[in-house]
Amino acid sequence: MIEDSFPPLNSTFLVPFRYTVHFTKDIFSPTNHCLSEFFVSEKKEGSTKKALVVIDQGLLVHNPDLVSKVRSYFKGLDSFVQLTEDIMVIPGGEDCKNDPKVWESLVDAVDRYGIDRHSYIIAVGGGAILDLVGYVAAISHRGIRLVRIPTTVLSQNDSGVGVKNGINYQGKKNFLGSFAPPVAVFNDLLFLESLDDRDWRSGMAEAIKVALIKDKDFFLWIESNAEALRNRDLEKMSYLVHTCAKLHMDHIAKGDPFEFGSSRPLDFGHWAAHKLEYLTNFSLRHGEAVAIGMALDSEYSFRIQFLPEGDRNRILSLLKEIGFSLYHPKLSEGEKKNLYLGLQEFREHLGGKLTIMLLHGIGIAKEVHEIDLKTLSSAVDFLEENL
Amino acid sequence: MIEDSFPPLNSTFLVPFRYTVHFTKDIFSPTNHCLSEFFVSEKKEGSTKKALVVIDQGLLVHNPDLVSKVRSYFKGLDSFVQLTEDIMVIPGGEDCKNDPKVWESLVDAVDRYGIDRHSYIIAVGGGAILDLVGYVAAISHRGIRLVRIPTTVLSQNDSGVGVKNGINYQGKKNFLGSFAPPVAVFNDLLFLESLDDRDWRSGMAEAIKVALIKDKDFFLWIESNAEALRNRDLEKMSYLVHTCAKLHMDHIAKGDPFEFGSSRPLDFGHWAAHKLEYLTNFSLRHGEAVAIGMALDSEYSFRIQFLPEGDRNRILSLLKEIGFSLYHPKLSEGEKKNLYLGLQEFREHLGGKLTIMLLHGIGIAKEVHEIDLKTLSSAVDFLEENL
Repeated sequence: MIEDSFPPLNSTFLVPFRYTVHFTKDIFSPTNHCLSEFFVSEKKEGSTKKALVVIDQGLLVHNPDLVSKVRSYFKGLDSFVQLTEDIMVIPGGEDCKNDPKVWESLVDAVDRYGIDRHSYIIAVGGGAILDLVGYVAAISHRGIRLVRIPTTVLSQNDSGVGVKNGINYQGKKNFLGSFAPPVAVFNDLLFLESLDDRDWRSGMAEAIKVALIKDKDFFLWIESNAEALRNRDLEKMSYLVHTCAKLHMDHIAKGDPFEFGSSRPLDFGHWAAHKLEYLTNFSLRHGEAVAIGMALDSEYSFRIQFLPEGDRNRILSLLKEIGFSLYHPKLSEGEKKNLYLGLQEFREHLGGKLTIMLLHGIGIAKEVHEIDLKTLSSAVDFLEENL
Repeated sequence: MIEDSFPPLNSTFLVPFRYTVHFTKDIFSPTNHCLSEFFVSEKKEGSTKKALVVIDQGLLVHNPDLVSKVRSYFKGLDSFVQLTEDIMVIPGGEDCKNDPKVWESLVDAVDRYGIDRHSYIIAVGGGAILDLVGYVAAISHRGIRLVRIPTTVLSQNDSGVGVKNGINYQGKKNFLGSFAPPVAVFNDLLFLESLDDRDWRSGMAEAIKVALIKDKDFFLWIESNAEALRNRDLEKMSYLVHTCAKLHMDHIAKGDPFEFGSSRPLDFGHWAAHKLEYLTNFSLRHGEAVAIGMALDSEYSFRIQFLPEGDRNRILSLLKEIGFSLYHPKLSEGEKKNLYLGLQEFREHLGGKLTIMLLHGIGIAKEVHEIDLKTLSSAVDFLEENL
C-alpha cells in the first residue's frame, strides 16, 4: 500500500509578535516626537514606506484642524514615511462595521495608493474604526503594518491594545475578522478630554472587569478614586487606562493570544452584555452593557455561594458610584427567555461547552460550565428591584 | 507632562502552530481510517463539532460518486463530527478566486450551518479551491479549523501544505488573504491519477524549484527518474510529492512562516512567472510559468557568472525532459518592456528593495538586489533561439 510508504510530516513552529503601546498627549503637536521617533526607528535601507491615515469623523467636532495637523506633522518625515495623497475620514461607531461599502472604500484605497506589506495603515479613532481598519490591514496583501491611535477610554485600555479586529456581516457582530497584532499603539490622553460623559464612563467598565478577575489592588484603587474618575479627573483616568491596558496585554501575552482554546477569562460579564447590546439595538454602549453583565454575574456568584456578601456589595456599590445603571428591562423581557438564549448563543460562540467566568472574591475568578436558570432569574429580579 | 508619567508597555509573545500532513490513498474508502482517526483524536468532552465540506466540481468528472462517498464515510462518525446537511460543490480553477459571489456563498454557509471556531471546514480540491476556502475559514469567526485535502500535484507538494490563503480582488491576484495554517492536511495520491497531463506535469515545477535552491540530492533523483515521472509513474510521483512537501514545510517552519521580512527564497523563478501568468491571461498553468521563470533565472545566473555552464545545461535539460516549454513569446513582447515591468511589480509586491533569488550551483541559492536588463534581455533571446 502506498500509504504505508510515506510517513506523515509534522510542522510545528512559533510565530513571534511584538508591539509597544506608547502613552502620550497631543500626539500630532509639532513638538511631540513620540510618533515620529517610531517611524525613524523603523527605517530600512532601500525601501520607501507609505502610510494611509484613516480618521474617525467624530473626532473633527472637537478637533476641526486634525487633518491639517496630521499633514503638517508628517511633512518633515518624508524620507521615513510618506503620507498618501488623501487622508481618509470616515464615520465611526458600530455602523462603520456594518456597511460593506465602507470596508470596500478602504480596500480600494490600499490598492489605489499602492500600500504594500511593509507600508502602514494608521487608524485614529474609537474601537469600531480600529476594528474595521485593523481588519482591512490584516487581509490586504496578507497583512499591512497597522498603527493604532485609539481615542476613547475603551479602546485605549482594552480593544485598541489587543490583537483582534473584525467587521459585522449580515447583522452578526464580528462575524468576519482575524487575530492580527498591530506594530504599535499610541494612546493619546488628550482625546479623552473631549469624550461625552457616557463614553468617558463606559470605558471604565473593562478596567473594573480586569480588576475583579485579576487584581484586587487595582479594584481598591478604583474604589478610592471613584469620585474623581466620575468627575473627569484626567490624571486619575490616565492611571486607570495605563493599568488596565497593562493587565489586558499581560493576559494576552501570557495566555492564549489567538484563542485556540475555549477558555475566555476576559469575558467576565460579557455573555449577558453581548445579548443586551443586541436586544437594545446597540443603544447601550458596550461598557454600559458590560457593567450590567458584571452586576448580574456578581449577584449570581453571590447567590450560588461563590462570592462573599461583602464583596458583592462593594462591587455593586462601585459600579453605581462610577455612574452605571445595573439593570435594563431587556434582561427580563419575554419571561427572561431572551436572556437564556444569550447563554446558549455564548456557548455556540465559544464553540464547545459553556464556560462562564464567575467570582470567588474580588480579584479571584473561577470558571463554571453550567448556570442554574432559577438562580439566574432571581439575580435578575434582585437587580430590577434594588438598583 | 503626562507622557512622562507612564512608561510604554511592551507586548512580546509567540503563537504556536502545529499541523500534520498525512499521505494516503483513496481517503473516503470505507476501509481507510486515516481521516476518521484524525477526528476521533480531536474529540473533546462536551462539544459537538460540525464539518462543512467543500468539493471542487472538477473532481466529479472522474469521481462521480464522490459526494455520496463522503456522506457514507462520515456516517459512523456522528459522535465525533457531524456533516452539515449540504455538501458544497463549486467550480475550481482561478475563476473561483475572482468571483465575490462564490466567496459570499461560502461565508453564508458558515453562518447558515452554525460552523463555529471549533468546527471544521474541509476543502477537497486543487490550489484555487484551497486558497478560497482557506480564506473563508481564516476570517469567519476569526478562524475556523481548516482541513485541506489537496487533489493536484501542485497543491499536494506546495501550496496545500503551506500556510497561505487568498482570493483575487478587482483582478489583483491574492490581493485579499492571510497566513493561517490548517489543522491537518491529507494528500490522497489516488486523485493524482485522474489529472490531465498538463496538471500532472506542471505540479513538478515546484519540486524542481525546491531541489534547485535547497537539495542537490533531490535534483539528482528527479534527473534519474525524469522519464518515469513524465510517463505518469504514480510511485515515483508519490516520492516526489512527499519529498517536495517535506522541503517546503521545513522551509516554512524554520524560516519566517508569516513572511514578516522581505526575503522570499521560495520565490525562485517566480517573478517572471507571475508576470507571464498575467500576460497570458492565466492560460499558462502556474507550474508552466514557473518552469519558464526558472529557465530564465538559471540562464541569467549563468550569464552573470554565478552558475557553472554544466549546471545550467543540466537544469535546462531536466526541465525539457519533464516536458516543459522554456520560452513563451510574451517574454519578448513590447521589446521586453512588460517583462521589465514584472521586475518592478515584484519589488513592489515585496514592499521593499528588489530581492531576487539566483543560483550559484544546483542546490545553492543566493539573493541579489539588482538585475542587469541587458543581460536579462540576452537570456530571453537565448531561450527563444535555443529552446
